[in-house]
Amino acid sequence: MPVLHHHPLSAGSRYVRLVLAEYGEEAAFVEERPWQRRDALLALNPAGTLPVFVDHDDAVIAGAAVIAEYLDETRGARAGETALMPSGVIERAEVRRLVAWFLGKFDSEVTGYLVNEKVFKRQMDSGPGSEPDPAAIRAARSNVRYHLRYIGHLMARRRWLGGNAMSLADLAAAAELSAIDYLGEVPWEEDTHAKDWYARIKSRPSFRPVLTDTVRGSPPAAHYADLDF
Amino acid sequence: MPVLHHHPLSAGSRYVRLVLAEYGEEAAFVEERPWQRRDALLALNPAGTLPVFVDHDDAVIAGAAVIAEYLDETRGARAGETALMPSGVIERAEVRRLVAWFLGKFDSEVTGYLVNEKVFKRQMDSGPGSEPDPAAIRAARSNVRYHLRYIGHLMARRRWLGGNAMSLADLAAAAELSAIDYLGEVPWEEDTHAKDWYARIKSRPSFRPVLTDTVRGSPPAAHYADLDF
Repeated sequence: MPVLHHHPLSAGSRYVRLVLAEYGEEAAFVEERPWQRRDALLALNPAGTLPVFVDHDDAVIAGAAVIAEYLDETRGARAGETALMPSGVIERAEVRRLVAWFLGKFDSEVTGYLVNEKVFKRQMDSGPGSEPDPAAIRAARSNVRYHLRYIGHLMARRRWLGGNAMSLADLAAAAELSAIDYLGEVPWEEDTHAKDWYARIKSRPSFRPVLTDTVRGSPPAAHYADLDF
Repeated sequence: MPVLHHHPLSAGSRYVRLVLAEYGEEAAFVEERPWQRRDALLALNPAGTLPVFVDHDDAVIAGAAVIAEYLDETRGARAGETALMPSGVIERAEVRRLVAWFLGKFDSEVTGYLVNEKVFKRQMDSGPGSEPDPAAIRAARSNVRYHLRYIGHLMARRRWLGGNAMSLADLAAAAELSAIDYLGEVPWEEDTHAKDWYARIKSRPSFRPVLTDTVRGSPPAAHYADLDF
């Protein structure tokens, strides 16, 4: 069986879990603490980052966006009409632009700050630099509003983020938002279009395992698993 | 004719110029100053970043990695044996991992600091925060050594960075290195394998236009265009 090296609140790991579930693929999960820079993880991915996917033939695929493209190329054809990457070249580019937006820009402006400050620092051995940085949390709370408005802007014009069909773009955005929603950090009341889109994604069977995640020392926000949030 | 919105020292823009040249594609170039957040550029790419490619049918493709995948899908088949993306799914994942390494990790740990501090700040209207930050430059100079060793490590084992054939991985790495080589910031003497690999890439006809770039107020390092550096 394939193995996914992940952390429950790593948004990139959540993205791959959603893609696997949408394609009906099973995998074993190995929880990692990427800040420990474990030799075995570095051997799989010299960048030391999550997620890393080890396929049933021992092929090692590193990085959320790369794993999703690989799963689309190896499992997407089988999924046929429900493939998460459109067939047109311009539509594919738009999906990839949005995947990069959420896994890159959103992650570095919002999720990275919040998960690092509120979760990872708590899980690390305490020591210098292990206190949450209020400036980083403030920046994330300001930035998330702009991103919610951007999702709302797209959803006022499209059926799904990337176009007419659900795609990797929706899963990347939902993975990032779900990680900070766990922390109670999404001001959903700010944008109805964004909230309605997330409610649709959140109700999918592929999302259920993500909604049962718990992290030691950081219980989920009260509404986290609630489909009527 | 397609149009590329770029900056001469944006490594992502250089990457796309190299891909275009390897595929024998012509494009018109529009030089942008991304820190000005020009409305016309934001309309093409809401992230406000470079590069942006506008194809001859007015399709707008934003982001270096996304444009390269698009060019591979629209021009790679025509290029046949010289396609820059391998056909095997595992080999494709390895090329994508390395493209993400250089455009993402290398750029944020090395090129971004150096180009921002040494070039962009000089081109901006002067004002608060426009002085180069010595700590950022020091960090980049330390980080580049680790990345050169990683290139050397790969090149001691492979013909090209991504495997047996030249690929997008080599062009992404060379684009990043060329931007800081312009600034005289690559300690080539540190790794023979890395230097030999770069000499091979630098000698390709696709590289010639990049070697004639000049930026107002920041002349290139003396050896920048020299194929025997």
